[in-house]
Amino acid sequence: MIALIGGTSPEGKGLALRFAAAGEIVMIGSRYKERAVAAAEEVRRLVPDAWVRGALNRRAAREADVIVLAVPFEEHARVLKSLGEYLRGKILIDTVVPLIFEKGHIRVLAVEEGSAAEQAQRMLPDTRVVASFQNLSAVELASLERPLDADVVVCADNVAARNAVMAMIDKVPGLRALSGDGLANAHHLEEITALLLSLNRIHRGHASIKFTGI
Amino acid sequence: MIALIGGTSPEGKGLALRFAAAGEIVMIGSRYKERAVAAAEEVRRLVPDAWVRGALNRRAAREADVIVLAVPFEEHARVLKSLGEYLRGKILIDTVVPLIFEKGHIRVLAVEEGSAAEQAQRMLPDTRVVASFQNLSAVELASLERPLDADVVVCADNVAARNAVMAMIDKVPGLRALSGDGLANAHHLEEITALLLSLNRIHRGHASIKFTGI
Repeated sequence: MIALIGGTSPEGKGLALRFAAAGEIVMIGSRYKERAVAAAEEVRRLVPDAWVRGALNRRAAREADVIVLAVPFEEHARVLKSLGEYLRGKILIDTVVPLIFEKGHIRVLAVEEGSAAEQAQRMLPDTRVVASFQNLSAVELASLERPLDADVVVCADNVAARNAVMAMIDKVPGLRALSGDGLANAHHLEEITALLLSLNRIHRGHASIKFTGI
Repeated sequence: MIALIGGTSPEGKGLALRFAAAGEIVMIGSRYKERAVAAAEEVRRLVPDAWVRGALNRRAAREADVIVLAVPFEEHARVLKSLGEYLRGKILIDTVVPLIFEKGHIRVLAVEEGSAAEQAQRMLPDTRVVASFQNLSAVELASLERPLDADVVVCADNVAARNAVMAMIDKVPGLRALSGDGLANAHHLEEITALLLSLNRIHRGHASIKFTGI
């Protein structure tokens, strides 16, 4: 079972939709149960045979084996602290990017640990943290009628966790999982998010990324 | 006329080859005239009707209108200082990425100005600096028999210079130029280089990047 923490955010809901469409059992988490339930209903409307339910973040984290974190960076440390006890021994997929918008420019906040995912790993040494999904457009994720067309880089220090997440990604049509080695590479993915948001603004699109030559 | 400074480096020679194949007039620069001439002969062997010549870096910079800088970062400031007088009023395309290889990990060196290109622009206020070509594989550039398949993001504070470089890129088959707005975004491109080199090592390939959805 996959839990989306912050699952009613555009990115969280988009991932829930694609995972449900790929046949995964999905729990959409939120701070507000009503919102979580409404988001699950929305997914079920689009994917009638989906295994999907809404719940409070806490419950979603407790019940799931794989937890996807999709909250704003401002909430990152607080949410990890409050859910830490439910994440022990599990896989945490950290999608969070520490972005700053200033003077019309988007840049990545320097996180002491190197990246949001490395911050999570330092806070939760008994959780296998995987950095991924930073570079998928929430708009593209939501448009189930349009096939996805993107590569998803997966960084983790724990190889088994990385492989498990890559297998999850490869089940989603239109996505290709690519190992990005350890968490020390997660920062590059954060920088790509900042570039994609700039490109979206310039080109009025919803950019995702692909790698040619590999 | 386009001059390649450090034009006998893999990246410089690859770009010279593709520009020459696209019909541009190309001057390959080097610190050693013999090497520059040999590289020009190599290009002419692959593109028999190429307009290409080898020369000392200094002479290439003096004669060309558009100068492409393709030296290691360690040489960046020194070369800019020594060639500055020839670059006034011209377009300088800075391809340089300040990379560090440490403990088996590749990361981007923090440059005070934000990126190599911003360092160049601060050193040469009368030159229109354009950041580009950080994310093209030298191996792919060299393989003229294989079509390129990549997007090239172009960052510059001077819009006319950015547009001129984008037009140059769009003449090369298989490349698509994408405006990346101002030089403040150049750092993101540097981070992508570090990621591409990691991906190359993991996947034993020669990765370039494409953006879908825009």
